[in-house]
Amino acid sequence: MAVNTNRHFGKGSSEPSFANDGQLRLFSMRFCPFAHRIHLVLNAKNIPYHVAYINLSDKPEWYSKLNPNGKVPALQLVNEPGEPFLAESMVIAEYLDEKYPEVKLFPDDPLEKAQTKLWVERFGSIAGAFYKLVYEKNADDVNEQLLKTFYAELGQYETELARRGTRYFAGAKPGIFDYAVWPWFERFGILGSLIGDKYSLDDKFPKLAQWLHLTREDLAVQKHLLSTYTHTQFSLGRRDGTPHYDLLVEES
Amino acid sequence: MAVNTNRHFGKGSSEPSFANDGQLRLFSMRFCPFAHRIHLVLNAKNIPYHVAYINLSDKPEWYSKLNPNGKVPALQLVNEPGEPFLAESMVIAEYLDEKYPEVKLFPDDPLEKAQTKLWVERFGSIAGAFYKLVYEKNADDVNEQLLKTFYAELGQYETELARRGTRYFAGAKPGIFDYAVWPWFERFGILGSLIGDKYSLDDKFPKLAQWLHLTREDLAVQKHLLSTYTHTQFSLGRRDGTPHYDLLVEES
Repeated sequence: MAVNTNRHFGKGSSEPSFANDGQLRLFSMRFCPFAHRIHLVLNAKNIPYHVAYINLSDKPEWYSKLNPNGKVPALQLVNEPGEPFLAESMVIAEYLDEKYPEVKLFPDDPLEKAQTKLWVERFGSIAGAFYKLVYEKNADDVNEQLLKTFYAELGQYETELARRGTRYFAGAKPGIFDYAVWPWFERFGILGSLIGDKYSLDDKFPKLAQWLHLTREDLAVQKHLLSTYTHTQFSLGRRDGTPHYDLLVEES
Repeated sequence: MAVNTNRHFGKGSSEPSFANDGQLRLFSMRFCPFAHRIHLVLNAKNIPYHVAYINLSDKPEWYSKLNPNGKVPALQLVNEPGEPFLAESMVIAEYLDEKYPEVKLFPDDPLEKAQTKLWVERFGSIAGAFYKLVYEKNADDVNEQLLKTFYAELGQYETELARRGTRYFAGAKPGIFDYAVWPWFERFGILGSLIGDKYSLDDKFPKLAQWLHLTREDLAVQKHLLSTYTHTQFSLGRRDGTPHYDLLVEES
């Protein structure tokens, strides 16, 4: 099977043969928000890379052998001795920022950099609430408490963006703060189809809504963008225990 | 109550008055392994700092007001506008390394730095198993499966240290790798009194045992070192629901 397609490698697949061209190899899953971060960072830095998508419910044997950690995202550095793998999205992102500094995404200032990391870390609670809202939803009942937490935390980001007074969290251009949280914002629309009117960003958070529209047009984001419809399709399948990894692959 | 003593601030205490000398302020807990990391980093870099220990079971009202995050470790940067707080031990550690680079603890090379972070991150599974072994132990029964996990993961660090062929994980001198994992190694002796003969490092992991003896003598480590006896005393109290935060304070 070829790399750089939207098809996912599953159990029984044979190991992909990458072109021997020195390009980085990203092991990803098309619908994983953490892996999404690395696509955005690579895109923003104009770093060419190969990608192999992994079926996480039915992992290929060759992948566990190649990368015992077995997780995605994983970035294989084919130009380093031993062709090592890096894991953890923010570790990979910072590595790429130091190794390919032409387009800088992390702040240079130590304090700004630390604060950016803390904002990204903190976003985990929004991501967690969102995940539960989508995957632990009862048929007729929205968890109001969870929705409250979700909105309360989003409010902190609205306030922070207003305080910064910039178009993006990172300033005049998107930076790692924007790219690290974007994958979840791209998916928040899923809530619309699940809980309907109760989900809205525009009324409650005008700054975030503006940021959302701007960031969606960013080229790095555009290159990996999926529609709310597609994200919803994947989420519904996953919630029912049948994640459709190859949703994007046209049957011919 | 004065700062820089081993006594912990609890509910009802009044806010400490720090000397207005521009020194960093560390909010810590004397027995917290994550906070321990920051003491080691500050010690290794010879950065003078004030410390206020917080009773985490009975937090002082003033602390939640001062630092809404409420967690330890937290480092207050009194020389920055707004006197901001930093949280998360590894974020604080990297900030200190960039801001005070005279004694460098993180590798300069982006790949080595990323790999060091991954080793520290990975250590979380050892720390988790250790925590469960100590705090979820039944009276007469050691969780053999957990002990197996604990040793298997430690074996990975033994192998890595042998592979590096250096005295410390960081090389000829201790670095962030060593200081980030040390707090748990300092506490592993607790297992000796809980599970007796079943705990030993020397037989199984000669490299780690050697590293342990060397690192224990490091000045930064010595400055914050507690005995296995003291760590065990605190853990037993905590396990029984009565953590004795002021164990080190001599009653006069």
